Amino acid sequence: MELPKKITDVQQYFGKLPGIGEKTALRHVLNMLNWDQEKLSEFSKALDNLADLGECVDCGMLCDAEKCSVCTDQSRYQMKSICVVEGVTDYIAIENSGHFTGLIHILGGVLNPLLGVGPDELNLDRLVSRVTENDIEEVVLALNPSVEGDATSSYIKEVLPENVKVDRIGFGIPMGGSLEYLDSMTISKALDNRKMM
Amino acid sequence: MELPKKITDVQQYFGKLPGIGEKTALRHVLNMLNWDQEKLSEFSKALDNLADLGECVDCGMLCDAEKCSVCTDQSRYQMKSICVVEGVTDYIAIENSGHFTGLIHILGGVLNPLLGVGPDELNLDRLVSRVTENDIEEVVLALNPSVEGDATSSYIKEVLPENVKVDRIGFGIPMGGSLEYLDSMTISKALDNRKMM
Repeated sequence: MELPKKITDVQQYFGKLPGIGEKTALRHVLNMLNWDQEKLSEFSKALDNLADLGECVDCGMLCDAEKCSVCTDQSRYQMKSICVVEGVTDYIAIENSGHFTGLIHILGGVLNPLLGVGPDELNLDRLVSRVTENDIEEVVLALNPSVEGDATSSYIKEVLPENVKVDRIGFGIPMGGSLEYLDSMTISKALDNRKMM
Repeated sequence: MELPKKITDVQQYFGKLPGIGEKTALRHVLNMLNWDQEKLSEFSKALDNLADLGECVDCGMLCDAEKCSVCTDQSRYQMKSICVVEGVTDYIAIENSGHFTGLIHILGGVLNPLLGVGPDELNLDRLVSRVTENDIEEVVLALNPSVEGDATSSYIKEVLPENVKVDRIGFGIPMGGSLEYLDSMTISKALDNRKMM
């Protein structure tokens, strides 16, 4: 049946989001019809504001101001350590772990010659200059384990000054994981990364 | 970690939708950051428009105009049949089945004395007047099977003119369903509703 255009208009945009199909989108729209007008217009305004969200000039994280809260926090610089991640969601994951107290840097992807992503497409120059400017002593590479992630990690180690210690985060069995269900690559990595108790 | 307000603003509204938690909401917002500004502002406008969506004066279905497409379709009146549903989603389900060619009427709920829903809270008067005005011969009650749905069905039968045939849609095993996994109430209903082959 043909639904009112006002409904299908909103439904269409919900349907563009990951994991939302036509039916779920309609469910959301029908739910929103119970919202009062004020709530709807605030949601609408919030969406408009999203368009001019900027990026931190230092680390590349999304932020309202010129620099993000991590890059303006002076105590972060004292750790002399910087963690390199692929994207915004990885940045959030590292921050939410609460375990890393140094600076963070968003690379904006990984090297991928097939997709035309070379060193110039990544936020690499800024990483090197941040390392030198802030006398960073340790770079922790938190790129995802993949062929591209591995290659990018090696590349970054090459371009960084020699006196900087470059680490990669550990790979192995995740907490709560079960050997039974893990792939053999993960188990091989876990065996390689064994640690004396 | 503290995310930019422009992100959390949108995230908050997504989180109010059914089945969307904080994490999924954030995933949607981050996905929308890849949209161009035009698409964002169109989504925003569509949300604003949603606030003044009206209802069909006859059946109560959401619609842009005074009357919905079903109520303006003259061929629907010739069937002399009207299907009564609880809400908008049920209306859509009946229409999408493509099997019912008469009129449809949205009741706006079912009688529920505990929640203070009496006959006056439902779109009942309009149903009775539509039945008389359009010489309806058959009323098909498509209310959901529940204590309230059963009581409301009985009540509607009472208030309708005596010469009108009142049916209730059939209950039983759904297509593709498996006896093994169905509750005993459904199986009892299915046994009651057996039909000679």
